[in-house]
Amino acid sequence: MTLINTNEPNFKSVFDELLGRGKMDMEHVSSIVKGLIDEIRSDGDSALMTHIAKFDRWSPSNGAELRIDAADMKRAYEALDPTLKASLHLAYDRIRTYHEKQLPKSWFDTEANGTILGQKVTPVDRAGLYIPGGKAAYPSSLLMNVIPAQVAGVEHIVVTTPTPDNEPNELLLAACHLCGVTEVFKVGGASAIAAMAYGTETIPKVDVITGPGNIFVATAKKMVFGEVNIDMIAGPSEIGVLADDSANPSHIAIDLLSQAEHDEMASSILITPSQKFAEACAAEVEVWLKKLPREEIARKSIDERAAIIVTSSMEEAVKFMNEIAPEHLEVATDNPFALLPSIKHAGAIFLGHYTPEAIGDYVAGPNHTLPTGGTAKFYSPLGVENFMKKSSIISFSRQAINEIGEACALIAHTEGLGAHEASVRCRLDV
Amino acid sequence: MTLINTNEPNFKSVFDELLGRGKMDMEHVSSIVKGLIDEIRSDGDSALMTHIAKFDRWSPSNGAELRIDAADMKRAYEALDPTLKASLHLAYDRIRTYHEKQLPKSWFDTEANGTILGQKVTPVDRAGLYIPGGKAAYPSSLLMNVIPAQVAGVEHIVVTTPTPDNEPNELLLAACHLCGVTEVFKVGGASAIAAMAYGTETIPKVDVITGPGNIFVATAKKMVFGEVNIDMIAGPSEIGVLADDSANPSHIAIDLLSQAEHDEMASSILITPSQKFAEACAAEVEVWLKKLPREEIARKSIDERAAIIVTSSMEEAVKFMNEIAPEHLEVATDNPFALLPSIKHAGAIFLGHYTPEAIGDYVAGPNHTLPTGGTAKFYSPLGVENFMKKSSIISFSRQAINEIGEACALIAHTEGLGAHEASVRCRLDV
Repeated sequence: MTLINTNEPNFKSVFDELLGRGKMDMEHVSSIVKGLIDEIRSDGDSALMTHIAKFDRWSPSNGAELRIDAADMKRAYEALDPTLKASLHLAYDRIRTYHEKQLPKSWFDTEANGTILGQKVTPVDRAGLYIPGGKAAYPSSLLMNVIPAQVAGVEHIVVTTPTPDNEPNELLLAACHLCGVTEVFKVGGASAIAAMAYGTETIPKVDVITGPGNIFVATAKKMVFGEVNIDMIAGPSEIGVLADDSANPSHIAIDLLSQAEHDEMASSILITPSQKFAEACAAEVEVWLKKLPREEIARKSIDERAAIIVTSSMEEAVKFMNEIAPEHLEVATDNPFALLPSIKHAGAIFLGHYTPEAIGDYVAGPNHTLPTGGTAKFYSPLGVENFMKKSSIISFSRQAINEIGEACALIAHTEGLGAHEASVRCRLDV
Repeated sequence: MTLINTNEPNFKSVFDELLGRGKMDMEHVSSIVKGLIDEIRSDGDSALMTHIAKFDRWSPSNGAELRIDAADMKRAYEALDPTLKASLHLAYDRIRTYHEKQLPKSWFDTEANGTILGQKVTPVDRAGLYIPGGKAAYPSSLLMNVIPAQVAGVEHIVVTTPTPDNEPNELLLAACHLCGVTEVFKVGGASAIAAMAYGTETIPKVDVITGPGNIFVATAKKMVFGEVNIDMIAGPSEIGVLADDSANPSHIAIDLLSQAEHDEMASSILITPSQKFAEACAAEVEVWLKKLPREEIARKSIDERAAIIVTSSMEEAVKFMNEIAPEHLEVATDNPFALLPSIKHAGAIFLGHYTPEAIGDYVAGPNHTLPTGGTAKFYSPLGVENFMKKSSIISFSRQAINEIGEACALIAHTEGLGAHEASVRCRLDV
């Protein structure tokens, strides 16, 4: 782990490396991904079966075998430990309540001359949710993708998830039943993205694809963008922490590790004006590391990609953190809301000493699908609006077009568009 | 122009062709576009100069020459005909008023146990607006891209536009002054998109790129998506009209032509339950065509890509129009609002006999940058939100984490993430 002060001569190069974190080299996989997509487009289900045999090591004999039986989901749900079941229900309810507050409203406004202008908001017809399989098959990912689509009012929700060796993850099945999704298919990777973007005999074509995934999934999502909408292109997870001496170094250390344990490529970045806190926190990371079940992954991530930066002030710390634009940002100070106005870019902001990032991964309510790698400068968390779209509403009266039609016709004329001009003029009284 | 009834045997094949309209074959330009982008990334300004010499036939000798002088914009504005100037100001004011109503608000909510959850909405730091040059240099495009960025509160707005033979379009310059933009660069095509996505010595790197363009621009926008956000991938313009016998066939004919005159690839589609209206409208298209300054383009578009579909009912007409999901949709009936609830997919909806599509291109207020080719099923009109992004806000109290922390820790434990679990447990009182 790097511990550096902003006044050290090599700070700029260390910081530039942090800014470049999470850049994905899609180029080296793009021809493979394009090949997989082309095969799905031309051969549909039969290509899917071939890809499954190759990547997931089992051979479905027909399209129907790709579908997970609702009875299996129900069985998995009923087999859940009662405390876990209650915890998942608590998560579902809190996530649902938060997302319901996001629901945008259609609106309109009128002018005295008879004009009505507005915006109609409607759900997409079909959403496709990608949920990683195998070790990274997290039921929380399912909740975080399904709930915003449900709140948006999407009628047709499709889930795809890879099932290596044809062994579905029981927790994921249980979560599907809990959420009430019924169209779940055992397909993964770029093939699943292509199948949902273009449709096959078995997998319905959708309008929006969301969900996390590896570099193959991310590259496929980018390639089908335009044919469908997508949520974002996400890379390895990351956390930024702004803290001062009021924070508990042991708590901040385990928070940094909670990202590091995800992935060797994850980034954990603490920026603090206190050299003493920085050093205490670095020491606590070592103490915690030895206790972690995923010590090896976390240690590699911490060794290679974690950084503690000591600044001259909290103001300077915020400035650098805005440049980082982290996926998760903890503000561990006594009065964290005082810093909120100056925080410009972060996927989710966790305020105060009792708000560890992990609380937002599961039960707080807001979505845990967040922009990574600095893309919080322009992407938003996954939300209800990813599953909705808008139509402008325009209605003019005879009086209204007579009042402003001439201006419209003149601009059209100036732009050389005669039919535009005529379509307005023919409706004027003069 | 095709005129067909839904009960004719070849209807399905005609309709499928309409559904496939506007598909862009990006593949055949993708290696050219990738080459241009790579050159800008590695050589910056010097590559820009080379591209300008090649595509726009002039040779800037340094980066400063790429910038359009604010004095030139002011001069062009002052030289405007006073009536046109007033019309452009009317357009600016109405577009601004509409977009101000779109501005999303940050919000939060509290729970009795001390939890605060919310969403903070902030503008992006820098927006890059691409405005086509030459014949298609429309001042209205500038207004429609600049105003939502200004309303969003974007501090740094950059405009790029190609200037063939180093001759800027005077109308566009005037519109720049009117809108108050000052960073305008004479760069076009894929090179401009790459310059704004990655930055050069002269062109600043931005966070969001919006604006229309040809297949090279569209392909470049798709390629830089992820490095920056983009508005949408747009193809040729199109109009759908739902009309019955209450509409004036001459008016609807010129409305269809107002799309056809844009581009030989534009699509104009009328769906009506009245055979009589369909035939009258087809005849009026012929009458109008001869009067148009852009007759040749419009005729080619009408001949090859226009269609009139006669249905058994207005309900059936709406159903087919929802499948088309047109960029512009006119509803030309006596009571158009009665149909609004059943209209699911359209970029902008123009209601009633006095609302020609062209009114929305210039002065109505809503944005004229709209999803094409059926992508209204998942994309929205360009708007203020394209220039903003959200951050989730999460703040837990000691009481709050004690109440729901156990559920969170249990799910984390079940997912095998020990540091997540520990980061919550270490904050619990027990």
